[in-house]
Amino acid sequence: MSETVTDRSPKQNSKAIVVFKPSGTVVEVEIGTLLADAATQAGIHVNLPCGGQGRCGRCRVKVEHGAISHRSGVRLSSAERAEGWALACQAVVKGDAVIQVPEQEQVEIEFITKAVGAERIALAAQFDGQIDPSVRRAHVSIEPPSLEDQTTDWDRLLRELSLQHNIEDVTITLPLLRELPRDLRDAEWNVTAILDMGDPVQDPCARPRLIDLLPGDQTDRCYGVAIDIGTTTNMVYLVDLLSGQVLDRASAYNAQISAGEDVISRIIFSQKRDGLRRLQKMVLKTLNALIEDLTTRNQIPTRQVSKAVVTGNTTMIQLFLAVDPRSVREMPFVPTIGQAMPITAEEIGLNINPQATIDCLPVVGAYVGADITAGVLASGMYDTDALTLFIDVGTNGEIVLGNRDWLITCACSAGPAFEGSGVRHGMRATAGAIEEIWIDHRTYEPTYETIGGLPARGICGSGMIGLLAEMFVTGILDKAGKVRRDLATPRVRVGDHGGEYVVVWADQSGIGTDIVINEVDIENLLRTKGAIYAGFSVLVQSVGLELAEVEQVLIAGAFGQYINVEKAIQIGLLPDMPWDRFHYLGNTSVLGAFYSLMSRPLRRTVVDIASKMTYLELSADNTFYDQFMSALFLPHTDITAFPSVMRVIKDTAEGT
Amino acid sequence: MSETVTDRSPKQNSKAIVVFKPSGTVVEVEIGTLLADAATQAGIHVNLPCGGQGRCGRCRVKVEHGAISHRSGVRLSSAERAEGWALACQAVVKGDAVIQVPEQEQVEIEFITKAVGAERIALAAQFDGQIDPSVRRAHVSIEPPSLEDQTTDWDRLLRELSLQHNIEDVTITLPLLRELPRDLRDAEWNVTAILDMGDPVQDPCARPRLIDLLPGDQTDRCYGVAIDIGTTTNMVYLVDLLSGQVLDRASAYNAQISAGEDVISRIIFSQKRDGLRRLQKMVLKTLNALIEDLTTRNQIPTRQVSKAVVTGNTTMIQLFLAVDPRSVREMPFVPTIGQAMPITAEEIGLNINPQATIDCLPVVGAYVGADITAGVLASGMYDTDALTLFIDVGTNGEIVLGNRDWLITCACSAGPAFEGSGVRHGMRATAGAIEEIWIDHRTYEPTYETIGGLPARGICGSGMIGLLAEMFVTGILDKAGKVRRDLATPRVRVGDHGGEYVVVWADQSGIGTDIVINEVDIENLLRTKGAIYAGFSVLVQSVGLELAEVEQVLIAGAFGQYINVEKAIQIGLLPDMPWDRFHYLGNTSVLGAFYSLMSRPLRRTVVDIASKMTYLELSADNTFYDQFMSALFLPHTDITAFPSVMRVIKDTAEGT
Repeated sequence: MSETVTDRSPKQNSKAIVVFKPSGTVVEVEIGTLLADAATQAGIHVNLPCGGQGRCGRCRVKVEHGAISHRSGVRLSSAERAEGWALACQAVVKGDAVIQVPEQEQVEIEFITKAVGAERIALAAQFDGQIDPSVRRAHVSIEPPSLEDQTTDWDRLLRELSLQHNIEDVTITLPLLRELPRDLRDAEWNVTAILDMGDPVQDPCARPRLIDLLPGDQTDRCYGVAIDIGTTTNMVYLVDLLSGQVLDRASAYNAQISAGEDVISRIIFSQKRDGLRRLQKMVLKTLNALIEDLTTRNQIPTRQVSKAVVTGNTTMIQLFLAVDPRSVREMPFVPTIGQAMPITAEEIGLNINPQATIDCLPVVGAYVGADITAGVLASGMYDTDALTLFIDVGTNGEIVLGNRDWLITCACSAGPAFEGSGVRHGMRATAGAIEEIWIDHRTYEPTYETIGGLPARGICGSGMIGLLAEMFVTGILDKAGKVRRDLATPRVRVGDHGGEYVVVWADQSGIGTDIVINEVDIENLLRTKGAIYAGFSVLVQSVGLELAEVEQVLIAGAFGQYINVEKAIQIGLLPDMPWDRFHYLGNTSVLGAFYSLMSRPLRRTVVDIASKMTYLELSADNTFYDQFMSALFLPHTDITAFPSVMRVIKDTAEGT
Repeated sequence: MSETVTDRSPKQNSKAIVVFKPSGTVVEVEIGTLLADAATQAGIHVNLPCGGQGRCGRCRVKVEHGAISHRSGVRLSSAERAEGWALACQAVVKGDAVIQVPEQEQVEIEFITKAVGAERIALAAQFDGQIDPSVRRAHVSIEPPSLEDQTTDWDRLLRELSLQHNIEDVTITLPLLRELPRDLRDAEWNVTAILDMGDPVQDPCARPRLIDLLPGDQTDRCYGVAIDIGTTTNMVYLVDLLSGQVLDRASAYNAQISAGEDVISRIIFSQKRDGLRRLQKMVLKTLNALIEDLTTRNQIPTRQVSKAVVTGNTTMIQLFLAVDPRSVREMPFVPTIGQAMPITAEEIGLNINPQATIDCLPVVGAYVGADITAGVLASGMYDTDALTLFIDVGTNGEIVLGNRDWLITCACSAGPAFEGSGVRHGMRATAGAIEEIWIDHRTYEPTYETIGGLPARGICGSGMIGLLAEMFVTGILDKAGKVRRDLATPRVRVGDHGGEYVVVWADQSGIGTDIVINEVDIENLLRTKGAIYAGFSVLVQSVGLELAEVEQVLIAGAFGQYINVEKAIQIGLLPDMPWDRFHYLGNTSVLGAFYSLMSRPLRRTVVDIASKMTYLELSADNTFYDQFMSALFLPHTDITAFPSVMRVIKDTAEGT
């Protein structure tokens, strides 16, 4: 069947016809085309969670007829191959074929603000500093040209901006120059100039740039957007630049998820033919949908949105700009640019005013991006005397240590286990996810809560932290993360992936099967938490300090909002210190973008932060590996570093 | 037939099928589409010399079948209409139709440098000033990134440009940033940076901009182009920026000619739907063909062409930028911008290095363009004590008067008569054109020379000046430009347009019919020469001087090369002064662009020239009309201003 490379087509040419079912879409492709590319060409969506590496096995399709060869089939058994299964990302068209595409796992781009859990988002809605955005509006009434004064349109406008507002040396882009004669005449020479003034303090040579000309006096409104491009979630704030009010916010899953769930998968995808442009299009689709949603429901024309400040990790920024991120992944891990030049919305295709400046915040290294420089700004740690540990708990686990005098940072490749990847019943924090859990230490029966109170569909990050902690504290798990198989409960059993614990029986679950956690899942989770803990251990050591000397731990990231500190300490994800030293900050990345949008002095501070940060490359640091190995246990090889956990275990064992 | 608006099609929809013969091309268009637009849609070329105004009647087509309505038919007799003739620019599709398109007059885009007359072009081929272009090449050898030094690609390049060349604050555009990681690695970190340094003297805030990164050391080559966009002819110089040598030059007719022969017709065409973009595409097609030709025959990749300086009249510059020139035509005649911002080749679509700067020279007014600021630079009149009259004899007849201390300018709407338009047997200076002529004052028999020595096809500008002068001096014409009808020669007769003189009999002509000049032709020519003479009369008067005080007259324009000064004085086109005060400069426009390309100080001088020039608007000047009316005679109402002409007439009459 599928694995035989037999071209049954009598045609001599190099093309093949591929039929995709159930839609029946027919496409003609070159022999040698990847099935995934043929599907794209046919407009058929096939998820590639690992970015097309053939590792995750989630892009499987069934070859009903025809000639297909397999590049790699590690995720397929020979029985499955015999049945005709193939991985779309590894199967090559060798002749005419009929392909059955199973129903795809929905790539959810539902708007989180409209979905369950919306009330959890509670970030600053009002800028409380000195309002000083780079965007300025100036109303000018201009004497029309006459035979006595034939000054050109542009010089005429410049003259009045100078006379009426002391604004000098304005520049204009070609697209706007093309509108100039009509804009001035349609408005009868009575216009509001929207200008991006740049920051003359930062750059004495900054020249104001015309962004738009609007008819009449429109100085009473002025809008911008702050954008955080997360690997998983994109967030947009619609901001009133005059008042500093966040008028509205919206977030959605990054459409790039269909091309890979983590940064590395995306970079791999970007190396495919046209992959970089496709990834850029995907994230723009998401961002433009969010902007469309925000402007529509607030009745603001997109043309009135005059600036965007963008943040995100280094790869997300490079993909947004369509700058090849390959060197971010390859040794020695170097980004293409630290502080990208300001560009116009038109150059990228972001649907705000075409001439609006898009200002990407600076990145520090391949794995310490603009989300972290923005986060340090929003956290205020750059302006405190207290020794502060800032941690953004995401796929990468970026950590910053320091205070007003110095900052050191690293990224610890935590992996996406807490976001549900690599964990059989892991899922993102959406409806039906188990987010809190308790286990009875005598009966081993669990009690849990799901998001939205719906029947459980899986376990999200906070649920996994709670589950691990409870299993450890109640003795279901040993220090090494192995399931004890001698317990008197049917919930503990041995499955395909070693020992496992049944969290939800099939008849109570929302997916019709048992929801379990197994030893392979746990191993993945321990690697993630171990990497994070090793990260801040190494960081603290590298400056000759001890973890105990850290005066405050600031936890950022959308994920961070849901962490139960007690449980996180119990599994050794966070260091064992008084709980009042931990603070949740939420999405500091978008907050930093918002501050930078509202205030040129704070935007300068981001530049200072980025230049001040020392980047510690962990892959060049031998002590990281040692620390990582020690942190692969529950809570840690050195249990004395976790006195509160020792106490809880003792108490639990004694049944108090 | 064609004029009846009868839709014989049984279809109810709003579309119609139009068949163009002889090609048989079929196109479906909306009812109400202009026939000219339908032809464009079908890829059929129909000339619109007057820009689609319905005035010239040269876009006629024959309606064989079908429903067509006429917007205007002033150029069609009712007999012609009855035969089915229609003007493509005035005929509206009302239903299915079959259209016969006559063979179009060839829009010649032959390369003049390859054609007859090439040897006449003899402009400076070597820049003899201080070589100081804005483009600079810097070779840098860069330490590759390592785990010890993870500096970003861009900062790494910046660091070496600073250390090795003292070049600071370089900027980069997004398209080039996208190439950066690959360019650096493919070249193994050994690259030549091509930079546009701007002009820090002119603008202390000018920042160098990266144009390209080439592998290895390529500092030994550096090219640019100087471009003159004439209404009729486009000229490109390929320049070695290191040596100042003009390596090659090429010129061709501006493809916009098919959309109108003069500036006004082009502006009218630009107001059609998509007209502006179509005109821009046409001129780019011509320029890119010239650049392709130059770079191919000199074996220089277009990517190596790092800068373009562009000049042309105000409308040509605006059309090149696709900036609507409507206000140039409408009272009070105002251009959109004086000094356009530098743009990149990519923004426009000029096929040199995509990031190369395109620098358009400044314009002074609606009818005194960059060709004149460039011309004043090239002429050197801005740097002389002598009272100088500079005249660019083209469609508009721009005139500049002054010296190193002051400059005053005007444009006198001369019209394109000397370029062959509005003169029955007028033609441009190509093969077969009569360029010199003498008439025997006794027999009235002519002797003439044609370009290329071919049978005469028509009369070009210099031929028309000579013909008018000879007819006047020999008494065939009276002072008012009327043909004397009492002469004993069959060459003088009365035709459809009054009295006429047969220059070439049908059996000797290259077109099978008599080549004549008639009183309507002569009236048009007198208007043109009258406007030019009135122009410099008013200009000289406006500063309280007399024509006799002018110390030198510099004649520019491709046309200017062929003027016989004696004849031009005889018809009153040029003032009567000693012949040694007249100097031919040739195409000063492209020369000024070339100088500006080679030297930043000279480029600054162009800015000084433009800001120093006082623009005299003749349409606001009552004395111009009076002067014009006086100049409509041969040589002038005031014959005493032309003593040399009086002498010649007397001598001729006496038969010496």
